[in-house]
Amino acid sequence: MADAPRKKIGRPPLVENRREMLLDTAARLFGKVGFERCSMQDISDATNVSKGTLYHYFKTKQDIYDAIFLSTLKKMASFVDQSIDKKASARDQLISFFRAHAEYFDTHYWDFNATVLGVAGVSSSAMRHEAVELRDRYESILREIVRRGIETGEFALEEPSMPTRAALSMVNWMPRWYRPNGARSAADIAVSFAHLLLDGFRRRD
Amino acid sequence: MADAPRKKIGRPPLVENRREMLLDTAARLFGKVGFERCSMQDISDATNVSKGTLYHYFKTKQDIYDAIFLSTLKKMASFVDQSIDKKASARDQLISFFRAHAEYFDTHYWDFNATVLGVAGVSSSAMRHEAVELRDRYESILREIVRRGIETGEFALEEPSMPTRAALSMVNWMPRWYRPNGARSAADIAVSFAHLLLDGFRRRD
Repeated sequence: MADAPRKKIGRPPLVENRREMLLDTAARLFGKVGFERCSMQDISDATNVSKGTLYHYFKTKQDIYDAIFLSTLKKMASFVDQSIDKKASARDQLISFFRAHAEYFDTHYWDFNATVLGVAGVSSSAMRHEAVELRDRYESILREIVRRGIETGEFALEEPSMPTRAALSMVNWMPRWYRPNGARSAADIAVSFAHLLLDGFRRRD
Repeated sequence: MADAPRKKIGRPPLVENRREMLLDTAARLFGKVGFERCSMQDISDATNVSKGTLYHYFKTKQDIYDAIFLSTLKKMASFVDQSIDKKASARDQLISFFRAHAEYFDTHYWDFNATVLGVAGVSSSAMRHEAVELRDRYESILREIVRRGIETGEFALEEPSMPTRAALSMVNWMPRWYRPNGARSAADIAVSFAHLLLDGFRRRD
């Protein structure tokens, strides 16, 4: 990179990265302009990739949306899972889950906005099965933490499902009001949320 | 209503109710079909109100969306506010807030889906100021409860804003996964959430 900038406008990136770049740019467009308002031509213009090449990778705009959605879910699950110390207490694991989830959406803000938040209803039935499976898998990471906390006696809960859903709601709604580069990072806020959820509002006498 | 059904297809309802009926039907269409995919013609067809009459009430589809959005926020705030016993403890008020919020979205499912959840980004800047004010007013109902709980010593919290946001996130995300007519009502689930938030996950020793 000694004689950078090497990259000219319009010069295509390496082929193996091109699919990722297309998805990344499309996610920003979907997030900013809206899925319905954004055309294949817009994506072609924004990426400097010809429509012919674009159609080589994705047959329809819906295919692009589905690819962003599935890839976001997969990568987030893998990132969050790796962030959790398998030997820690349930309390510390729950805090790690909240922190990692928020870190992921903070650094992948547009993917997240375009998919998890945005046009959740439009996904084709063909990918719905896979999406539901991925979401369930993600939810199960947290549910397993809660289940273990009940088992060890750390958590005074009757069952893990409803508390897991309550916890996920707190982080899932965050991108609706959180704006990057504010006073507190998403991860910082999420950790406060985890503590609130662990300790509750009421004074412990 | 002895000789019902009196209402013929295409017979317009009373004029004073017509605006409400248009908004109600449009909300269902926005919620089911999507705002972008739904045309003024579709709304005219679904309501049996001519496009001329429809345009008499609303100049654009965006105006209809804005009217649903503002009316939902206003009515919900008023309903929730009236459901809270002003003399109850902060704990009981928080439970009432959760229950009333969930009851409202359960009985106004499509308005809620079309607006609070749906195309939050598309609202015109003209109504943004009013919408933000209404949302702030709604949030302030809950924040006031939390503030009072801190003041009376019921809640062991440092300040009310972050806990209020955490609490709202739990109920705001609910419509994304809740489906009407399931085993537990929205209000029932929301009350469980309130208890979780009040008591926290951790065992109190």
